[in-house]
Amino acid sequence: MRFEVEAEDGHARAGVLTTRHGAIETPVFMPVGTAGTVKGIRFEELESADLDARIILGNTYHLWLRPGTEVIKAAGGLHRFIGWDRALLTDSGGFQVWSLGALRKITEEGTEFRSHVDGSLRFLSPEVSMEVQAVLGSDVVMVFDECAPGNATHEDTERSMELTARWARRSRTAFDQLQAAGADTGRVEAEGLSGAQALFGIVQGAGHLDLRRRSLEQTVEIGFDGYAIGGLSVGEEKQVMFEVIDDIAPRIPADRPRYLMGVGTPEDLVEAVTRGVDMFDCVLPTRNGRTGQAFTSRGKLNIKNAQWAKDSRPLDESCRCSVCGRHSRAYLRHLYLSGEMLASILLTHHNLAFFLDTMRGVRQSIRSGDFPKFRREFTERLSANGE
Amino acid sequence: MRFEVEAEDGHARAGVLTTRHGAIETPVFMPVGTAGTVKGIRFEELESADLDARIILGNTYHLWLRPGTEVIKAAGGLHRFIGWDRALLTDSGGFQVWSLGALRKITEEGTEFRSHVDGSLRFLSPEVSMEVQAVLGSDVVMVFDECAPGNATHEDTERSMELTARWARRSRTAFDQLQAAGADTGRVEAEGLSGAQALFGIVQGAGHLDLRRRSLEQTVEIGFDGYAIGGLSVGEEKQVMFEVIDDIAPRIPADRPRYLMGVGTPEDLVEAVTRGVDMFDCVLPTRNGRTGQAFTSRGKLNIKNAQWAKDSRPLDESCRCSVCGRHSRAYLRHLYLSGEMLASILLTHHNLAFFLDTMRGVRQSIRSGDFPKFRREFTERLSANGE
Repeated sequence: MRFEVEAEDGHARAGVLTTRHGAIETPVFMPVGTAGTVKGIRFEELESADLDARIILGNTYHLWLRPGTEVIKAAGGLHRFIGWDRALLTDSGGFQVWSLGALRKITEEGTEFRSHVDGSLRFLSPEVSMEVQAVLGSDVVMVFDECAPGNATHEDTERSMELTARWARRSRTAFDQLQAAGADTGRVEAEGLSGAQALFGIVQGAGHLDLRRRSLEQTVEIGFDGYAIGGLSVGEEKQVMFEVIDDIAPRIPADRPRYLMGVGTPEDLVEAVTRGVDMFDCVLPTRNGRTGQAFTSRGKLNIKNAQWAKDSRPLDESCRCSVCGRHSRAYLRHLYLSGEMLASILLTHHNLAFFLDTMRGVRQSIRSGDFPKFRREFTERLSANGE
Repeated sequence: MRFEVEAEDGHARAGVLTTRHGAIETPVFMPVGTAGTVKGIRFEELESADLDARIILGNTYHLWLRPGTEVIKAAGGLHRFIGWDRALLTDSGGFQVWSLGALRKITEEGTEFRSHVDGSLRFLSPEVSMEVQAVLGSDVVMVFDECAPGNATHEDTERSMELTARWARRSRTAFDQLQAAGADTGRVEAEGLSGAQALFGIVQGAGHLDLRRRSLEQTVEIGFDGYAIGGLSVGEEKQVMFEVIDDIAPRIPADRPRYLMGVGTPEDLVEAVTRGVDMFDCVLPTRNGRTGQAFTSRGKLNIKNAQWAKDSRPLDESCRCSVCGRHSRAYLRHLYLSGEMLASILLTHHNLAFFLDTMRGVRQSIRSGDFPKFRREFTERLSANGE
């Protein structure tokens, strides 16, 4: 993997992340493909000019439990299994098992939990996570971390953060051994690249800036291809989230991509770019699409509302996606109220188009030095609907 | 509407049905778009070379109850409401209300029933059905008929068939008045066509050939743009179905399209073409796609089966559709078992591609005089899987 920053406007940066499965312009939004599919979207659509997603995310936890590593290994890795030849990032499963709450038990060694698929007892650790991600052959691997709740005390957060640091070291070691052993299924020759997977570290520390800084130091000391800010958007105040990003993002080594995990709304993305973030993933465009919420340049729109019953306008009059070019709010509302799958398909498509198009606008404006203007106009427009 | 038979091979015929929304090569399979959407399929896919569906079906019953005629009228008809510029056929709602069983009451005047959407008491009659279909502006309108169960006695069937004949007359009268009054929202100028909707009659009579023949005579006497064989595939033996088609299809005026309603499997389609049928609709490719069943050139395939867990082959190795070009049985099985929407989307796409491609093969072989060979090879291959 290679990363180059090509333009800066304040803390905001535009660059190129070159992976063995193609080049990705940053700042970039990564659609979430939990179980090896971005829900409701065909890969042809992800590749179309409308979306042109260059990298998508897969969840190690979900793929490990189903279909399991044996099936994915037999296919020759996740790219081949799902039929996607562009870049893939996989998370470590740490966040998912943490989210299981009472259903899991965390020890120094790792996390024990019951599978939501078949109830079997499972054990996930840095070593297991690295092994699974090697089988997946994703282009970017995440270290196995522990997450503290948004409102965790200093003491609890510190304990969690220190555990994350020890797990990061073990992840690094296991990852390097697996690379050396050729366990990575996604290895491809690519010009000027080693062909290896990239490994990203994760900064934790909840809302405590001193712990966040210490976590960053420890993580940088181990050394990774990129650095993620984890444990945000997990129940803390939005103000706390931006304080952490404000403080931490610019401290991450400038020559490494900065990835804000699991965030957020279109305005969150633009605000985080302002603070120097390069990469994002979030389920909002896909999940909210399935529950009838559209993201538009004039704010959110609930397709269920009676006011759209006879509205012949597209979801977003400034949007150039295929859904807005063809279908009215009235039709989409009808589909949604009728429980038709096409409602989810079309709303998800539009939402992804809006997120990805927003990032295109962000990149262009950083390169042309107009990012502050873009940000101001974008934010003003978002409140136009007043919904 | 205009219909021309251009080639014949035995009773099998290949021709062109010209509607105000484009020309349709026959024999043709019409995907079912019940509520204004072919479930799980974007219109762009229906138009793609993979499927190239020239006509789809909408259900008057469903669209009348939701979103209702007011909404569709406001949009300027069903084509504009759903964003589809190719041909549409709408059924009359007769079959749907008949299927409600105990929930409906049939009188000479029409059928009273409770809406499955909001429980309201509704009344559907030849006149109401014609009014609704004029608002929908479909290119082919079906008369409002009554259907007898597959195992109905001669007496019950006769009573039902006579009612259908009287309703056909009333449908014709109401339809002509609505056309004269300009109620049809789908009217478009098209070269050499009147611009009016077409009206098809329906032959009933269950498995009683004498009643079927009388029904045909009565229907032809009224005079329609095309003739459908209704009331088949409703519980009767398959042998009975083919006896009726054998006897009735060739008696339908040769210069009118012959439409076999609600049938059937790929082999049923080919067998019915052999007996002179030109048009088909069926929910099998879409509905079975959603329940994990694929139609292939070697027979049906249940994607849930464990034997496909690591199978890297496409659903159908002879299929040229985008799903077979990209995805393995193993991946599709994983999607299905994970409850992912993409399983339905992809299986439905493949199934429609198989049905539509089969009909392309049928048409080509009739034109080249090779239909008997096509039929023999197609049927032999279908049993190759032995599933």
